[in-house]
Amino acid sequence: MAGSVFGKILQISTFGESHGEALGVVVDGFPAGVPVTASDIQPFLDRRRPGQSAVTTSRAEADAVEILSGVFNGQTTGTPVAMLIRNTSQRSGDYEDLKDCYRPSHADFGFNRKYGIRDYRGGGRSSGRETAARVAAGALCQQFLKQLHIDCFAYTESIGPVSIGARIGEPVDRSLIAGTSTAMPDTEADARACAYISKCREDGDSVGGTVACVIEGMPAGIGEPVFDKLDAALSHAVMSIGAVKAIEIGDGVRASAGRGSECNDAFIPDGRGGVTKRTNHAGGILGGMSDGSPILLRAHFKPTPSIASEQDTVDRNGDPVKLTIRGRHDPVIVPRAAVVVESMCAVTILDALLVNMSARADRIREFYLPNS
Amino acid sequence: MAGSVFGKILQISTFGESHGEALGVVVDGFPAGVPVTASDIQPFLDRRRPGQSAVTTSRAEADAVEILSGVFNGQTTGTPVAMLIRNTSQRSGDYEDLKDCYRPSHADFGFNRKYGIRDYRGGGRSSGRETAARVAAGALCQQFLKQLHIDCFAYTESIGPVSIGARIGEPVDRSLIAGTSTAMPDTEADARACAYISKCREDGDSVGGTVACVIEGMPAGIGEPVFDKLDAALSHAVMSIGAVKAIEIGDGVRASAGRGSECNDAFIPDGRGGVTKRTNHAGGILGGMSDGSPILLRAHFKPTPSIASEQDTVDRNGDPVKLTIRGRHDPVIVPRAAVVVESMCAVTILDALLVNMSARADRIREFYLPNS
Amino acid sequence: MAGSVFGKILQISTFGESHGEALGVVVDGFPAGVPVTASDIQPFLDRRRPGQSAVTTSRAEADAVEILSGVFNGQTTGTPVAMLIRNTSQRSGDYEDLKDCYRPSHADFGFNRKYGIRDYRGGGRSSGRETAARVAAGALCQQFLKQLHIDCFAYTESIGPVSIGARIGEPVDRSLIAGTSTAMPDTEADARACAYISKCREDGDSVGGTVACVIEGMPAGIGEPVFDKLDAALSHAVMSIGAVKAIEIGDGVRASAGRGSECNDAFIPDGRGGVTKRTNHAGGILGGMSDGSPILLRAHFKPTPSIASEQDTVDRNGDPVKLTIRGRHDPVIVPRAAVVVESMCAVTILDALLVNMSARADRIREFYLPNS
Amino acid sequence: MAGSVFGKILQISTFGESHGEALGVVVDGFPAGVPVTASDIQPFLDRRRPGQSAVTTSRAEADAVEILSGVFNGQTTGTPVAMLIRNTSQRSGDYEDLKDCYRPSHADFGFNRKYGIRDYRGGGRSSGRETAARVAAGALCQQFLKQLHIDCFAYTESIGPVSIGARIGEPVDRSLIAGTSTAMPDTEADARACAYISKCREDGDSVGGTVACVIEGMPAGIGEPVFDKLDAALSHAVMSIGAVKAIEIGDGVRASAGRGSECNDAFIPDGRGGVTKRTNHAGGILGGMSDGSPILLRAHFKPTPSIASEQDTVDRNGDPVKLTIRGRHDPVIVPRAAVVVESMCAVTILDALLVNMSARADRIREFYLPNS
Repeated sequence: MAGSVFGKILQISTFGESHGEALGVVVDGFPAGVPVTASDIQPFLDRRRPGQSAVTTSRAEADAVEILSGVFNGQTTGTPVAMLIRNTSQRSGDYEDLKDCYRPSHADFGFNRKYGIRDYRGGGRSSGRETAARVAAGALCQQFLKQLHIDCFAYTESIGPVSIGARIGEPVDRSLIAGTSTAMPDTEADARACAYISKCREDGDSVGGTVACVIEGMPAGIGEPVFDKLDAALSHAVMSIGAVKAIEIGDGVRASAGRGSECNDAFIPDGRGGVTKRTNHAGGILGGMSDGSPILLRAHFKPTPSIASEQDTVDRNGDPVKLTIRGRHDPVIVPRAAVVVESMCAVTILDALLVNMSARADRIREFYLPNS
Repeated sequence: MAGSVFGKILQISTFGESHGEALGVVVDGFPAGVPVTASDIQPFLDRRRPGQSAVTTSRAEADAVEILSGVFNGQTTGTPVAMLIRNTSQRSGDYEDLKDCYRPSHADFGFNRKYGIRDYRGGGRSSGRETAARVAAGALCQQFLKQLHIDCFAYTESIGPVSIGARIGEPVDRSLIAGTSTAMPDTEADARACAYISKCREDGDSVGGTVACVIEGMPAGIGEPVFDKLDAALSHAVMSIGAVKAIEIGDGVRASAGRGSECNDAFIPDGRGGVTKRTNHAGGILGGMSDGSPILLRAHFKPTPSIASEQDTVDRNGDPVKLTIRGRHDPVIVPRAAVVVESMCAVTILDALLVNMSARADRIREFYLPNS
Repeated sequence: MAGSVFGKILQISTFGESHGEALGVVVDGFPAGVPVTASDIQPFLDRRRPGQSAVTTSRAEADAVEILSGVFNGQTTGTPVAMLIRNTSQRSGDYEDLKDCYRPSHADFGFNRKYGIRDYRGGGRSSGRETAARVAAGALCQQFLKQLHIDCFAYTESIGPVSIGARIGEPVDRSLIAGTSTAMPDTEADARACAYISKCREDGDSVGGTVACVIEGMPAGIGEPVFDKLDAALSHAVMSIGAVKAIEIGDGVRASAGRGSECNDAFIPDGRGGVTKRTNHAGGILGGMSDGSPILLRAHFKPTPSIASEQDTVDRNGDPVKLTIRGRHDPVIVPRAAVVVESMCAVTILDALLVNMSARADRIREFYLPNS
Repeated sequence: MAGSVFGKILQISTFGESHGEALGVVVDGFPAGVPVTASDIQPFLDRRRPGQSAVTTSRAEADAVEILSGVFNGQTTGTPVAMLIRNTSQRSGDYEDLKDCYRPSHADFGFNRKYGIRDYRGGGRSSGRETAARVAAGALCQQFLKQLHIDCFAYTESIGPVSIGARIGEPVDRSLIAGTSTAMPDTEADARACAYISKCREDGDSVGGTVACVIEGMPAGIGEPVFDKLDAALSHAVMSIGAVKAIEIGDGVRASAGRGSECNDAFIPDGRGGVTKRTNHAGGILGGMSDGSPILLRAHFKPTPSIASEQDTVDRNGDPVKLTIRGRHDPVIVPRAAVVVESMCAVTILDALLVNMSARADRIREFYLPNS
């Protein structure tokens, strides 16, 4: 209710501040019998971890994950899986001068208005560090999605004016996602983007970008009609990541300028006794339910609001002040955010798969009365 | 959980199919003491009602609302407010030929996969008629938002290539919204859009468009950090409307191509002892909480998938068929959808306001121990 | 959140006041493909309906149920099933003199403190009539529980000092439940109870009693450990019925005075390759999960607070007044409450069965990848 | 949904197994601005901690709590408060022989049926140790309830045949609760109960008992009508504690045998301009809402199922085996359970207080528009 619990059957509950003791997540409702160890989770956290390349903050955090519960003899037991990430590189002193003023385009002002108090060290709960807990949860879900032959992956599509060559839905070389500095699956675009980021940093500025997420292998019919349509649930999940300002499904924005004859996707036989679509303008979701085609989602991130240049703002008394932000900041959040988008999508679709199991009386009878 | 219940403290539960007995909504958690009668709700339903102009379906429905509970002596009592809208103009025969095939880019295929059965008359539960219940709920919420001096309104911003003159956030003539055929607050653009829609209809085609929603008067600090950010909740709410394919908050898509120095909004004194922002790129939401500036949201609708031209599809056996859709359809859904976007936003922000009340210990103490 | 929505996957949302337009319920999350008509629901409502015998109120209500949605061609479709019961025998005049005072041991005082306003006609939302909507929902669930070979039934066990012969868990003649005036499955006890009730009525008094609910055929392992134990969920459900003041599971109160050697139930082979228990002190629930034995629950109802004798109370200003309650009241609520207990248990266990489907990875894989 | 998350606005999410790494809880929705340190929480955990007296298990656990998040400069910040308790005295070897068989009247059988796998060490998630996390959450809530002048306390009322002198609702010497071995606020009864427990232990047996919980200072009108009545929410909360088999509110079981004239509580002026009740048969709750009188709740605990005597049971194959339970077990759980009952009640009523804040339009307007 207060916003740090997410999901319906699968509920993740996260906690932790940027400069507090630790970050973590409790995953309730995760199915029993899925093999998992900390070393399955760690690689996902490493994709989000700071200090990995020239285009990210120099704050060095191991982000080492510890599984505290819910796993026994290498398998989940159906009870809550709690995962803990200790903070190790807090330099709170960097933030003393932010204590009494509001950084432009940050959450500081809202936190003070809402709670009357705020942990100003590194943004506290509104820091991007909060997303480490989301990634731990997403990584856990990915272990099981893999067993269901569902493939959920995200990558950087554009940074500022630089885009990769492939349109969303077209094949990309996935092995490059974790390999490039920008999480772009395109070395040439990556090089251009890095150059652009460097230029922004030199200018004391920051830059935005887009993340694409593709989900392949979803069975059709997943998602709940009306308020919890699959696209609505995914939008909720992804828009809840700080700095996201727009979400597109399939043709997205472009669809609103088009005509029905251009946007409709014809159903056709898939040649294996099933049904597919000739095109995928819908991005794999129709009427809020998956249609069997790949799900295509795009998230637009605004530029990091922490820039080196001096800015106008006000202090707690409402008086105008000039602010120069110190500390270690990313000139662009997008490369580290791709795995966060992927994680939120992984959590959302696994939850939707679980909710869907009770849709049909015949399948429930099969489940409980297999021999009748 | 199955998707027809929405909200946290304020929960709306909707029901009804296009060609069933009735549509309706039960609103639980609505505060006691708000004056309301059916005649306060009806004008909102009238904005969504079909058959109002040349650019909508000719299905004539009175969409007369009856309040069944929760109101006594002209005031809400704090108990559930149930509202009922009987269907009166069902022509189910129109749909017999759709029984065994899947309309392209509609929910038919998903419904069959999910449930194994579907009410094929007029799209059943996936019909746009379902949104009448949302509008009834939204209209109820508007009664109370008005008392809180919060103004939530939506209008058509563009249809196909035709846009109104004002950018979102700029003033519009609100008196025109309910007056033009397209719900555009701009008579000149309305005329051009109507001409364009007529052309599409003649071509046996349909068209998409965008709806802008503006919320003025929101106090700062509303919305829950992390998963239930106000923009995430609004995105969930609006993306759950059929045909919406993208959501933007503030600068939206444009933000991802920009730089921090262009996107940041400086905080400044408002001259009345408070704080405001010099610009509103953020669209009134920072860190998932309202910042006191107007909230700006844009929803992109795809073209109506029901078009007059013959289309390829498959039947229930997966065999290819040619389909020509009969029945009464809107060439564009956007003019009728504006009030639906407004309604979903109204429900969402009222819920967020209620949730926010328990954020601070000092205010809770004031509430329960006013004299200590 | 505000208390008129109940359940997790299966969510029922009820509305309606005693003397308003109608009562009703929206059932979301009910599985598709279950045959149901209004005539399947009506008999359950008839068991709760007033005016059926000498021991109930003389208010005559048909309590005729209309299904408004979610059923197509005689089957549920997976979309919300809304059911409506119009009020027909309101005699609001009876309640004018209660407008400004609080009936002892009724909800009037609490409603006024909570909401500042109350629909005083017949108790408004706190009337026993509210439970008609619960019974409609329970009846719907019973349609599907039957298909799962689960038998959930409740009956009157005692009224004041008169108890039936069989202890809970011992066989009773179920055909008598709907046949006796008291819902006791024991004609001899029924006769004595009726005599006792008549005596109470003559004394201007009322009387309490107990309802037993037995659930047979539940598979083992249903219920969620920790906070949503099956007994906790059932207690919530049954304690939410007005006038219930205690709940017992299995040995209940008696268990607290006993020793482990007397209360433990030995597991033994059931002779058909399965496991059963030698005794059932636990009442079919261990560690919050069903254990395969019949579930045994007992609800204790206080006497109807509306009695004919004059009582002391206060008015809205807090001044003392003498009150004599007029209107049509049950001298005992228990006979009509048995089907309400049964209904709340039916809703609760069906919901628990649905939630349980996602407990195990292997079964989820079978569900989504049946051939691998 | 899977049962380790509890609450509506205030949501607690617990994790941890008896012999895993740690136990813990994340409390989301706790108001900002409440002073708290680990040393405020620890005394509550100490009341539940094993090894404190002759009548509890000899397992020695420090149960030292660490606050990981949500507290800054000694105050809660409104973000999730995570608390961690490391396990330190695991002797898993004790449990190897329980791996393949089901202890009678324990959760083992249910866990295996539900999940197909179970952490058999010390009962895993179904161990009483799980309740340490509940106590940490309850202790946190008590910090704020104190500020609201609400006093929630629980004590042992009876053990086997030995009861304290005071009836629930009558004054007790609260200073004795944490001082006696049994948590009885009556040294004489405590001595007799200890003797009785020793006798049971000598007999290789265990014993049950009752816990009383009293809540003083609750304002009237708290609790949500219909499904989330305050007594229903409390019953859910308390019945979710392992080994509880019955719950009574106010007169409880006794009410069902009585008459209205004996059970009704007359409202009377309280002499200070307010309203009170002449008696409190209702136990402080009418129509599911607090009535301003002390809330009185009684929980009945079955005897500890782990007894030293040999018992019949079956193994995983369903074959009969003789079982003798080793390990360190409490002959009675009640003395340590009192603080668990108190904690669950504290969490429940604080949540109900938060939910209640949005009941009335006039108070919401005061909250958001204080000067109008």
